[in-house]
Amino acid sequence: MQHDQQHKELHLQSSDILTDIVIGMSDGLTVPFALAAGLSGAVSSTHLIVIAGLAEIAAGSIAMGLGGYLAGKTEIDHYNSELKREHDEVETVPHKEKAEVKEFFANLGLSEDVQEQAVEEMTKDKEKWVDFMMKYELGLDKPDPKRARNSAFNIGLSYVAGGIVPLLPYFFIDTPLQALKISAVITLICLFAFGFFKSKITGVNPWGGALRVTVIGAIAAGCAFGIARLIQS
Amino acid sequence: MQHDQQHKELHLQSSDILTDIVIGMSDGLTVPFALAAGLSGAVSSTHLIVIAGLAEIAAGSIAMGLGGYLAGKTEIDHYNSELKREHDEVETVPHKEKAEVKEFFANLGLSEDVQEQAVEEMTKDKEKWVDFMMKYELGLDKPDPKRARNSAFNIGLSYVAGGIVPLLPYFFIDTPLQALKISAVITLICLFAFGFFKSKITGVNPWGGALRVTVIGAIAAGCAFGIARLIQS
Repeated sequence: MQHDQQHKELHLQSSDILTDIVIGMSDGLTVPFALAAGLSGAVSSTHLIVIAGLAEIAAGSIAMGLGGYLAGKTEIDHYNSELKREHDEVETVPHKEKAEVKEFFANLGLSEDVQEQAVEEMTKDKEKWVDFMMKYELGLDKPDPKRARNSAFNIGLSYVAGGIVPLLPYFFIDTPLQALKISAVITLICLFAFGFFKSKITGVNPWGGALRVTVIGAIAAGCAFGIARLIQS
Repeated sequence: MQHDQQHKELHLQSSDILTDIVIGMSDGLTVPFALAAGLSGAVSSTHLIVIAGLAEIAAGSIAMGLGGYLAGKTEIDHYNSELKREHDEVETVPHKEKAEVKEFFANLGLSEDVQEQAVEEMTKDKEKWVDFMMKYELGLDKPDPKRARNSAFNIGLSYVAGGIVPLLPYFFIDTPLQALKISAVITLICLFAFGFFKSKITGVNPWGGALRVTVIGAIAAGCAFGIARLIQS
């Protein structure tokens, strides 16, 4: 089934590098953009907006990057502790574990006869048995040890790359509201393109997806602007 | 297996409300804290830090909340489009789909004989067959339709709740560096407590987890402070 195979591979890829880039860039484009927009409504110098924007990018990329790293680490620790327990249980309470395997086959709608044969054959190899319990009882896939480190790097870098875009105009223009106009145009275009690409990967309508991502960015920026204006005045 | 059952239920819960709160609060505590810390090294008035902080909380909570909503929506759309395709394939290319079911049982280590009986019995009921393909070939669980909306609300609100904590001292103290000291103490305590709780839920060592979360927050704040100082001078 080549069609499905492609789909699965895309799904796998998107669970790895692409998901990381999508996560990092989506927040990187949106949050520094909205923060800069908010400050544009409240301060008179773009210098301060650049400082706040870069501080936010540093904070956000570290929080998300290290957050991604820890999430990956935690996944590995969790998997290993569950793996150890399943190994123990297969040794100490094999009848209970066998009953769980049987239940799995019963839920698939197999006859009593086939259930018992399947359990008999499957539980001969303890490694396969444990793998089965991990995957189909607990729903845990073996995580890639390199994944945690790569994930941190990809998310953090994507956040920085995304975050620089809305800040760029503030580097060159002195009037905050003037810079905001250009920042809004380029950021919303990027969000649209990004949303389009993201939707293509996940297999949903790309135009609808692009519009949704763009609207989120615009709403976040609008609210930040409104709140900053309110406090300032 | 009560032990496992509890574990599964915790896992399920933590994939729902708790995961949302953990995601929202973890970023809510970290990023506004680091942004305020960064600005404390560069500006002379806490009023400006409060404005930037609240703008960031608005931006971040909307970006994350709506982001969570869209992620949930996308998951549902993706599931439904795959479900439709599996239904079609079961009708149009049943032999290929049967071969895939057989491969699944072969990978479990069942004998040729039991594989064929299992395929025969399983594919009698087309609904069960499609469910099987969704779950075990594509690894997709049926998403809860209410989940997308609730997820948005939980993540957004948790971000706001987390973000207010590090900002509080800046409301009451005029000197940025003075406010930063108090903000750092209360935020790092909260991050520690939060990291402890989060680790307990996911089943990893709570002290190690608490330390890791706290260190991320401190590093993010330190970097933001350093960058803001550098640009300012």
